[in-house]
Amino acid sequence: MSLSHLTSRIQPLDKAAMAAARARQANLTKPAGSLGRLEELSIQVAGITGQALPQVSHKVVTVMAGDHGVVAEGVSAYPSAVTPQMVLNFLGGGAAINVLARQAGARVVIVDMGVAAEFAPQPGLIDKKVAPGTANMAQGPAMSRMQAEQAILAGAEVVDEELARGLDLLATGDMGIGNTTPSAAIAAVLTGRDPLGIVGRGTGVDDAGLERKVTAVQRAITVNQPDPQDGLDVLAKVGGFEIGGLAGAILAAAAAHKPVVVDGFISTAAAMIAVALCPTVRDYLIAGHCSEEQGHGLMLHWLGLRPLLDLNLRLGEGTGAVLAMHLVDAGCRTLAEMATFGEAGVSEKA
Amino acid sequence: MSLSHLTSRIQPLDKAAMAAARARQANLTKPAGSLGRLEELSIQVAGITGQALPQVSHKVVTVMAGDHGVVAEGVSAYPSAVTPQMVLNFLGGGAAINVLARQAGARVVIVDMGVAAEFAPQPGLIDKKVAPGTANMAQGPAMSRMQAEQAILAGAEVVDEELARGLDLLATGDMGIGNTTPSAAIAAVLTGRDPLGIVGRGTGVDDAGLERKVTAVQRAITVNQPDPQDGLDVLAKVGGFEIGGLAGAILAAAAAHKPVVVDGFISTAAAMIAVALCPTVRDYLIAGHCSEEQGHGLMLHWLGLRPLLDLNLRLGEGTGAVLAMHLVDAGCRTLAEMATFGEAGVSEKA
Repeated sequence: MSLSHLTSRIQPLDKAAMAAARARQANLTKPAGSLGRLEELSIQVAGITGQALPQVSHKVVTVMAGDHGVVAEGVSAYPSAVTPQMVLNFLGGGAAINVLARQAGARVVIVDMGVAAEFAPQPGLIDKKVAPGTANMAQGPAMSRMQAEQAILAGAEVVDEELARGLDLLATGDMGIGNTTPSAAIAAVLTGRDPLGIVGRGTGVDDAGLERKVTAVQRAITVNQPDPQDGLDVLAKVGGFEIGGLAGAILAAAAAHKPVVVDGFISTAAAMIAVALCPTVRDYLIAGHCSEEQGHGLMLHWLGLRPLLDLNLRLGEGTGAVLAMHLVDAGCRTLAEMATFGEAGVSEKA
Repeated sequence: MSLSHLTSRIQPLDKAAMAAARARQANLTKPAGSLGRLEELSIQVAGITGQALPQVSHKVVTVMAGDHGVVAEGVSAYPSAVTPQMVLNFLGGGAAINVLARQAGARVVIVDMGVAAEFAPQPGLIDKKVAPGTANMAQGPAMSRMQAEQAILAGAEVVDEELARGLDLLATGDMGIGNTTPSAAIAAVLTGRDPLGIVGRGTGVDDAGLERKVTAVQRAITVNQPDPQDGLDVLAKVGGFEIGGLAGAILAAAAAHKPVVVDGFISTAAAMIAVALCPTVRDYLIAGHCSEEQGHGLMLHWLGLRPLLDLNLRLGEGTGAVLAMHLVDAGCRTLAEMATFGEAGVSEKA
């Protein structure tokens, strides 16, 4: 499969299914519109799936991991060794995403997109490693254009396998020490805004670290001159392998008419790459939450998305997206399971 | 049991349990504080329950129903007949709260606190009817002081029975055509603010109806002169039977060291009555969401609570509270189930 074939499969939402869902919402036993965003979600998911009464029972969160050459610039509070350590923690079931996914009834799919460490082959870890970490984007492109395409198609393959198992709601998650730095660079390039208002503290750098991060992003943009009209160029020059994988996962879900709950700062950068490659994909996205990371609000605004949750999260891994899955499910369930005024014998508005 | 006995049982939070939960949060495999409000929730629930690793698996939502004499003033878009019709819808499982409670694993407990209709005795409906609807508060007190105390104690009894069955997380819910009007009156009296900034459209009155609502609230306050220092007086003069029942339910849960997720406008008015009767109860409250109803934000501010969700809901029934139960559960689960840095062999911050 080629990237152009993947994006060509993404269709506009099904207006007839949306109209049917909207009409049913108006007939359910509640004041019209009183379920607010749950109603909007149900109508969006109807449009995405082409089903007037969509179900999102089979939930999957893909956690994609990668390392980043730009950590050499001193942009993270944690060492790169934490990336493979956390992958093992995911495999052991002890990370936040494992706990929240168990609660939400979502399967955690863990993918090595480009961790700078060798893993022994083990059940539960999908090997799609493009390379052991990106190059330092402050000195040149993070990866080649070919690697960028490879990362996207690998992410799409992961989702294609989950689609075959029955996936009907995808959440995106990431792990990668240093990955708020390329995410901020992607956001700065695509929005055209100054990195100073986008770069944040990530896992918790101090003031000096924050300054180094801003400088690294500015230098990466100056050195590489990524073309904002070309999503693949942006990913290659200032992106990451897990970010490319997540962009591909999003495109594959949309191509199969499945909704995608986008997590925080890194996942949103991946969503921006996906939208840069194929603007139609935007309608398939649900913003799970607004991250504490500075700049996330700006990225969601560029995407035209309003986040469902605002809980001061800044962990990544898909945690905010999986928490929001409860709400997407709630929207679909109320649409499908509530009684209508007629069925329940309840009087309508005077 | 007397009301003073009930309130005297409510104790401050357990500081040792909160310190233990806070210490464990700092050791879990995530950047410190990165789970934001989930961490705060877990620490609050530790303090409420006195457990360093609290569980909130046994969930209950009490939906209390009552009618309101003030509907004679033309304050609602729906006829009072809808109150008993919706009670039957709750019993049949077709209302939004039934669907969302099924999803959250919460039992729905339906209570007739003062519906202006006779129900045939039926399984699943708890009869605590104080009277068939309140009197018109625009012309005199909504109920007697004795009825107000009866409503509170009846609500507490409902929760006491659920506590015996194992309840460890309570959500409050309401049903009662016209009940945003007494709720707005309670809010105006206790905050000392002009009803104009508090009265909203409820289930959807038009501009003329909104004007009648404001006038009804102003008249109720002028005619009855409720004493803001006396929560029972406020409930009696401008309250409702379901509001009193919910205040009692909140007090009983707090007395038993159980957290309470408060729903929207009406439940928050009930929480204000509970706090007016016993200020310590405030620490046991979790604001489920911010309602679309004008004035709800002001009420939450008076209570010192920050809502978890903001989904443009304005339905009541406990819908926003039950949705927020997922988040309370998520906070407790991550605290209890995540691996520590030591357990997972993950490096800590440099």
